[in-house]
Amino acid sequence: MELISGNQIAADIIDELKTEVASFSGRKPCLALVRVGDDPASVSYVKKKEKTAAEIGVESRIILPPETITQSELETLIDDLNADDGVDGILVQSPLPGDLDELAIFRRVSPAKDVDGFHTVNIGKLAQEDDTGFASCTPAGIMEMLARSEVDLRGKHVVVVGRSLIVGKPVALLALQKKAGANGTVTICHSATSDLPAITRQADVLIAAIGRAGFVTADMVKDGAVVIDVGINRVPDSSRKSGYRLVGDVEFDAVSPKTAKITPVPGGVGPMTVAMLMKNTVKAYRLHQS
Amino acid sequence: MELISGNQIAADIIDELKTEVASFSGRKPCLALVRVGDDPASVSYVKKKEKTAAEIGVESRIILPPETITQSELETLIDDLNADDGVDGILVQSPLPGDLDELAIFRRVSPAKDVDGFHTVNIGKLAQEDDTGFASCTPAGIMEMLARSEVDLRGKHVVVVGRSLIVGKPVALLALQKKAGANGTVTICHSATSDLPAITRQADVLIAAIGRAGFVTADMVKDGAVVIDVGINRVPDSSRKSGYRLVGDVEFDAVSPKTAKITPVPGGVGPMTVAMLMKNTVKAYRLHQS
Repeated sequence: MELISGNQIAADIIDELKTEVASFSGRKPCLALVRVGDDPASVSYVKKKEKTAAEIGVESRIILPPETITQSELETLIDDLNADDGVDGILVQSPLPGDLDELAIFRRVSPAKDVDGFHTVNIGKLAQEDDTGFASCTPAGIMEMLARSEVDLRGKHVVVVGRSLIVGKPVALLALQKKAGANGTVTICHSATSDLPAITRQADVLIAAIGRAGFVTADMVKDGAVVIDVGINRVPDSSRKSGYRLVGDVEFDAVSPKTAKITPVPGGVGPMTVAMLMKNTVKAYRLHQS
Repeated sequence: MELISGNQIAADIIDELKTEVASFSGRKPCLALVRVGDDPASVSYVKKKEKTAAEIGVESRIILPPETITQSELETLIDDLNADDGVDGILVQSPLPGDLDELAIFRRVSPAKDVDGFHTVNIGKLAQEDDTGFASCTPAGIMEMLARSEVDLRGKHVVVVGRSLIVGKPVALLALQKKAGANGTVTICHSATSDLPAITRQADVLIAAIGRAGFVTADMVKDGAVVIDVGINRVPDSSRKSGYRLVGDVEFDAVSPKTAKITPVPGGVGPMTVAMLMKNTVKAYRLHQS
């Protein structure tokens, strides 16, 4: 069994981006990070993104509207960032508090600056295999981890558990593309799937994105499979100072010995998401400059 | 074995639309049909659409630019139809001749008038399960046939053979939706799939959209499956006046006795496509009026 280290792969990507950004003359790429309110998880996510941007040489512009901002005020704020020629990418940290309409805000971001890949146009471009779009960061990170671990999906059966718009559907569309590394045969399972273990056991590559701790057990995994664990779940742990620890959707201790390769949690898919956000920001900058 | 008659279901839908359109006071729905050049197949498709529109009471506006039209002239023509308040739906008959960039033209049509469902935004909306979009006609027709034949996909394994943007991908996204009738577990296979028969034999519902005559043979189908044959292939037949006959992607004579339900070719998915185009046009009209 080989551990696929998201920490290592993300660090490699960040290094590559640092070199790329250093080669840009003139203005550097700029990412606007919009965080509404002070939700502690959002504060920490935005801080992490800001720190990684700084490391790469991407300018970040932090915008912190109060929780009391109205939908139309937030839309005006987005419109201004869309119109601002010095901004290449815009990220609105999810979840938005209160009654704010998140989908409407995601759609307000110009598709050309939508480095989160949540805009309808970018999801459509993913289906159309149009590379001028932005794939959302977690699915793009999964594909990058597979590619850098020399897992070619061609002729492989990829089983995705979870049909969310943020992970399940886009990663299925990416795995299916007619591109080198992709060309997988793809099955998407979910809460309404009958006899799920019979399907997951067929997976050469199993992508677990359910959001339930330890949901994937050893009997659900074929010997020699590659397992990508997208889940990040908190479980109580009195031995930790925080009182909890993070675990994935896969019962790691029981499953990992059966696998050819597996991602850990933490340190697997998680760190890839921020790296891919930066990659999308640099791509937006390049498209914007050209 | 029960034959799913696309002819009958399409006729029912057309009847329903006729009643619905008759109830509209004032202006009737209007569909612009743009056919560039005189390709015989395109001539016959557009004629069929015009005839069905007339039957329902949908006004059709036929626009026949010559093959010599330039990309920018065609784009201006589309822009004018987009701006025309009397036009609810726009269909540009595919394929476009010569060097015309079809994808760019499909994207030029306003998403709100894209009754063919080919615009990036409408494909994105399909993934987002946003009902204000338009699903492309063939996949929407397949879902309608299944619903009207009392095939509920919940808990079923749906295997789609073919990953095209016109059929395979959108029908997979539709079958996966969290809607009554859908909620299928979906596998998408294609030319790079290994051991295809082992996968198709698992299908409770098999959707064949490969474009190769008789590709799906009896050994690839489970007893009691529901089979939807999207293929329309010409094979030489000297006993016919035309010199050919139409067959599907499924070897009908050998496969049909094994199935619970199957669509014939012709008279299966084919007629549904025009019916769904009309349904989309009436939907565009309703959204446009509201």
